[in-house]
Amino acid sequence: MDGRTADSALITTYRGTRGPVTPVWFMRQAGRSLPEYRALRVGNQMLDACLDPELSSEITLQPVRRHGVDSAIFFSDIVIPLKLAGVDVDIVPGRGPVLGKPIRTAADVAALPHLPAGALSAVSAGVARTVEQLGKTPLIGFAGAPFTLAAYLVEGGPSKEHLSARTLMHADPETWHALLNWAADVTGAFLRAQVLAGASAAQLFDSWVGSLSLADYTSHVAAYSKRALDAVADLDVPKVHFGVGSGEVLPAMQAIGADVMGVDWRIPLAEANRRLGGTVPLQGNIDPAMLAAPWPVLEAHVLDVLESGQAAPAHVLNLGHGVPPDTDPDQLTRIVDLVHSR
Amino acid sequence: MDGRTADSALITTYRGTRGPVTPVWFMRQAGRSLPEYRALRVGNQMLDACLDPELSSEITLQPVRRHGVDSAIFFSDIVIPLKLAGVDVDIVPGRGPVLGKPIRTAADVAALPHLPAGALSAVSAGVARTVEQLGKTPLIGFAGAPFTLAAYLVEGGPSKEHLSARTLMHADPETWHALLNWAADVTGAFLRAQVLAGASAAQLFDSWVGSLSLADYTSHVAAYSKRALDAVADLDVPKVHFGVGSGEVLPAMQAIGADVMGVDWRIPLAEANRRLGGTVPLQGNIDPAMLAAPWPVLEAHVLDVLESGQAAPAHVLNLGHGVPPDTDPDQLTRIVDLVHSR
Repeated sequence: MDGRTADSALITTYRGTRGPVTPVWFMRQAGRSLPEYRALRVGNQMLDACLDPELSSEITLQPVRRHGVDSAIFFSDIVIPLKLAGVDVDIVPGRGPVLGKPIRTAADVAALPHLPAGALSAVSAGVARTVEQLGKTPLIGFAGAPFTLAAYLVEGGPSKEHLSARTLMHADPETWHALLNWAADVTGAFLRAQVLAGASAAQLFDSWVGSLSLADYTSHVAAYSKRALDAVADLDVPKVHFGVGSGEVLPAMQAIGADVMGVDWRIPLAEANRRLGGTVPLQGNIDPAMLAAPWPVLEAHVLDVLESGQAAPAHVLNLGHGVPPDTDPDQLTRIVDLVHSR
Repeated sequence: MDGRTADSALITTYRGTRGPVTPVWFMRQAGRSLPEYRALRVGNQMLDACLDPELSSEITLQPVRRHGVDSAIFFSDIVIPLKLAGVDVDIVPGRGPVLGKPIRTAADVAALPHLPAGALSAVSAGVARTVEQLGKTPLIGFAGAPFTLAAYLVEGGPSKEHLSARTLMHADPETWHALLNWAADVTGAFLRAQVLAGASAAQLFDSWVGSLSLADYTSHVAAYSKRALDAVADLDVPKVHFGVGSGEVLPAMQAIGADVMGVDWRIPLAEANRRLGGTVPLQGNIDPAMLAAPWPVLEAHVLDVLESGQAAPAHVLNLGHGVPPDTDPDQLTRIVDLVHSR
């Protein structure tokens, strides 16, 4: 990492030093909740927008301009590396990523294409363009964790409890191993490309880890998440790891090599810090349901989260999951102003 | 409760006494996974089938005949009491319960209709007919917990993280209070009608409790679940409580007055027992994802669950969530045979 963002509030906090203000950004801050995003997206398919460097960069910058958050996070989608590898996947509005054909057998997995050389050039170009315009504000690169990607691949689309994926894990551990290694490699390459192009931190999202028992996570998932995160281990950037419903597996997730843990809204930051033994900075965890509440209710909740975050070695304020699409953007701006005023 | 089922394996185990064999039944054992159910349902809407005493009784009995499980559970749906109260709700195949109009304001809640006298007669008749044919095999009555019902009512249908419901909880606590009291009363009446008509136990399902923090559960949900369960407190039946993703709230759920706790697949029974202080019999918790695995894998998992259940005061074998629709029924029969042979 160059020195451009090393002294920023986000990066110093990720490194474990509390500064005068708590840095704040929001998962899914770029995208659906912003009218300027919806105006820009007219006529563009989601994955095409992610792969147009000019568009992805502009969308990434919009929330930084509007809210004054302490970080950008690159506008993309966790299935982008699958798409770039040649998997038949698309984002269906209102539903999510849908595959042409689910991946369920050893032969399906063996036929998964590798990322061609140069496949990530549009991602690199989008990141480079963004970083140029961000100045001293850091950009976070991100990628989906192998389990979450595998769940999409095996189910063929979004699913509630990821039954087919979790069946495959036990019914055919060899195929599972091959699939998760493949997913770790493509998503690791996606994350690495963003850091090499100028991202100052890297966040691995395991959206669906909450469907796993600790035993299943430890035996059948953790090693592949580590493999994905190891793709940026030689680069000098803080590594952030976040999962939804991760209360049971939080320490096991951290143990794969995360420098910072994101926490969802279900457990207080002080309790997350206790489970993690007070070892790492935390990021989170405003309940997204509070964003639609009247400001005094939301304000009290934000202050509670800040208070609970005092228990951790350091704290980056964020949501406990992504910004809901129908969020009033002014609520987000007010949160930033509140946090920065303290 | 009359003496008909008092000595059954299920009821003695629910009362805390381990017998020579572990009793077994499966959540959602009646219904979609059985070809004889699909044959019977042709031409009938879901909620109509629930309200036809002959059909609901026959569907309830099918898995008892086929699998030899130790209990029946009445075939119905958690939205049946809403429907009977006059709420515009229907089950949309592949989606779930959908409301004509979501309930979101104080006026919406005030306009919710009360259950008319005699509204539950089709439920009572279905239960009575079932109990007659069950002999010494107990029937479990069931109902949805107020939070889960409120989530359907506020969202207008199934939702992932129940954001609108959880927003209402904080944004307008008075309306929330009125809504949850209404839900507790209709669902409590539904549960009571089943017990009065002959059910030997009562299970309250909180399918969506896993989206709540412990603080939200304790402050905004527990009292209403208690109110629902209290509807059968004066009747001499064991009260079972189950929630999906309930690891954080398990002791708080038990504290509303549950005699037995159902446990989902995410935490081992021994760990659930530890969290509950070893105070109550447990029910669970085969991972539904294992039902599609080859028999040796499933068998090893069932034996693990039985082993882990030894930690609890008593144990009823069940799944950690409902039977998935595409389950091979023979896998369920094999589990029953395995458990009964030990």
